[in-house]
Amino acid sequence: MLNTSYTEMLQEKDVIFEIFAYATKRRAEVGAENVFDFSLGNPSVPAPKEVTDAICRITQETDPLALHSYSPAGGIPSVRERIASDLRWRFGVSYEGRHIFMTCGAAAALAHAIRAVTNPGDTVLTFAPCFSEYKPYVEGTGCKLCVVPADTKTFQISFDALEEYLTADVTAVLINSPNNPSGAVYSPSTLQSLSEVLTVKAAAYGHPIFLISDEPYRDILFGRADTTSPAAPGRDNLSSGVQAAYPAALYPDTLTCYSFSKSLSLPGERIGYVAVGPNSPFADRICELLPQVSRTTGHNGAASLLQRVVAECCHLTADLSVYEKNKNLLSEALRSYGYEFVEPDGTFYMFPRSLEPDAKAFCRRAMEMDLMLVPGDGFGCPGHFRIAYCVPTERVEKALPVFKRLAEEYRK
Amino acid sequence: MLNTSYTEMLQEKDVIFEIFAYATKRRAEVGAENVFDFSLGNPSVPAPKEVTDAICRITQETDPLALHSYSPAGGIPSVRERIASDLRWRFGVSYEGRHIFMTCGAAAALAHAIRAVTNPGDTVLTFAPCFSEYKPYVEGTGCKLCVVPADTKTFQISFDALEEYLTADVTAVLINSPNNPSGAVYSPSTLQSLSEVLTVKAAAYGHPIFLISDEPYRDILFGRADTTSPAAPGRDNLSSGVQAAYPAALYPDTLTCYSFSKSLSLPGERIGYVAVGPNSPFADRICELLPQVSRTTGHNGAASLLQRVVAECCHLTADLSVYEKNKNLLSEALRSYGYEFVEPDGTFYMFPRSLEPDAKAFCRRAMEMDLMLVPGDGFGCPGHFRIAYCVPTERVEKALPVFKRLAEEYRK
Repeated sequence: MLNTSYTEMLQEKDVIFEIFAYATKRRAEVGAENVFDFSLGNPSVPAPKEVTDAICRITQETDPLALHSYSPAGGIPSVRERIASDLRWRFGVSYEGRHIFMTCGAAAALAHAIRAVTNPGDTVLTFAPCFSEYKPYVEGTGCKLCVVPADTKTFQISFDALEEYLTADVTAVLINSPNNPSGAVYSPSTLQSLSEVLTVKAAAYGHPIFLISDEPYRDILFGRADTTSPAAPGRDNLSSGVQAAYPAALYPDTLTCYSFSKSLSLPGERIGYVAVGPNSPFADRICELLPQVSRTTGHNGAASLLQRVVAECCHLTADLSVYEKNKNLLSEALRSYGYEFVEPDGTFYMFPRSLEPDAKAFCRRAMEMDLMLVPGDGFGCPGHFRIAYCVPTERVEKALPVFKRLAEEYRK
Repeated sequence: MLNTSYTEMLQEKDVIFEIFAYATKRRAEVGAENVFDFSLGNPSVPAPKEVTDAICRITQETDPLALHSYSPAGGIPSVRERIASDLRWRFGVSYEGRHIFMTCGAAAALAHAIRAVTNPGDTVLTFAPCFSEYKPYVEGTGCKLCVVPADTKTFQISFDALEEYLTADVTAVLINSPNNPSGAVYSPSTLQSLSEVLTVKAAAYGHPIFLISDEPYRDILFGRADTTSPAAPGRDNLSSGVQAAYPAALYPDTLTCYSFSKSLSLPGERIGYVAVGPNSPFADRICELLPQVSRTTGHNGAASLLQRVVAECCHLTADLSVYEKNKNLLSEALRSYGYEFVEPDGTFYMFPRSLEPDAKAFCRRAMEMDLMLVPGDGFGCPGHFRIAYCVPTERVEKALPVFKRLAEEYRK
């Protein structure tokens, strides 16, 4: 008969999609201007003009036979070299082209990274709050996903909890910094401590513990005015302070999973990569295994044209300044209305406490005011809700009175 | 430790790649003009100009935010509608947009189709000779691949063998017509008989048996002079005689897997689809399951830009005439040299008998003359070799004396 596992997955309703569908219905009923939709993490700024130009120039100037031909497993060699060189420059890690494995976005990158370094039955650890799709991503590999409870005071790692959860059956630890849904960015000391714990435990258990670092929000970092300079967007920021902490620079057995979805505002083009830590003693073997994974999952490489485009544009970002502007507006206002939250250092999300313990009930109440928020339960962190503020600033401004009214209702 | 299954896969050497690598080495040593490489199935004609134009026009004329945004699971609704409409027109099957699930090429289409309609432990049947990658494709789903021996006289289906192999644990049958490596195209009577056998057995076993039809070569069909008209390439051909047989039109429980790799010469762009037979009683459920498969394999949809491009160009093909021209040249010459083969009705492959029983030994001997051929063993059909004649005609002409000399050596 039809597949039973996938049929069971249909039972787990996708809360975010349901909220988005309700928002769409309400837009038709009351007008788009009266619906405040903070449910979806879809970039709200256009791709840089350089991307548009590169698509057309490459298409017009390259022999179509060469342009659209099969790329080798792992990607076009010159593209892999270009991305390795960009990562060397940015983070000082000695990647070469062969360490970069081009994929159809971050989901495919994770699918490859997890499968290469684990065996079915292993446990993969991650940290709450976390992207709700990590469950099918990990379970699809045959591994078990285990979620370490959140440190809700900081959304850094709770090392006491990690100590308890990091048992001998854990072969990979999955992190996501900057984090969806909290907007937290792991500090250098968090990453340093994580590296130390993993090193000690790997030695104790007699097997490697790989760090899989999911970094699609790497370039959306707050805190310095010049991060938004259109000339070299993001670069100054990335080489400074907290934002410079790059997991693979601190822990050699790291597989970095990246997507250009957010940095270049290309979510629909599904283009990203796995970068295998070049100083891992397992690097060469992992590089050999990644193409084998493709053969079993139907991933036959990232689109050739888009590989060439991101190679030309990987040093750029879209103008990401609106996200920090929105964050500042929301933070100031929500704090004054009595909401409690950890102020985000990156992404386009924030993750305040709900004003009643049941975040689902809270979000239903917000929904009645046509304010679309996502309860934290699906992110493994009840009692919180996610605001996706990747919307025009004017929409944030218009929504502030609704956030205020909602808080006032709870004070009645 | 690292994954053991993928590590084992490294042991199975990729013969085609090894031959191609040797060819590359020899090109450097003796000059490209002296190496006759028929190893790889990479299209040798450029994408139609309409594709190049569509990429640039769509990129320049569409708001980048809309163009590059996430497409819904299954694809952009207008793209799915367009492809459904094209298939309705070509094959008279009543597809609607929801039956079309856009994928990153045929490999991803197969990965979704197989997973949706089977459960791990089931058996998937296919027919020799078959694409060597079917093994990892199927085994990656947890199913077992079982290969029905070839009818080497016609490369149609051997129904006596099928009767024996079609046991109760078979839940899906995978066909590939036009066929890689034989170039055979299943006749309407073959497909009609297959449909009858599957219907009878499904009833007898009390469970559906799904037909998964892998059709990347659908548009490369020989036999009529007007197939190569640049005005409406392929269309006349497709509505005539043997070439019109469309598996899904004959058997409702069919999932058609397609890629634009060959028809539009876009192999590197990884764009294709699954079309779910609309008259299957399971159609709606399969359409629901396909996006669930994506969640576990890291496939988050085909690239938005490329979806829009193929929607505009799905009624076109590249100028595929060179393949028939090459086939005619090779057929006539090889027959006169004493080679035996079933004359291809499509694709850009032919699959003659090797001139000694051991096809690997035969191909090694050809290799010594810098003639690169692929032994049939990997396709589940020893004693044969594959010629991939997707090369400029001038290369075929230059290679003919080498094929002749090789045959003469065997007559010595």
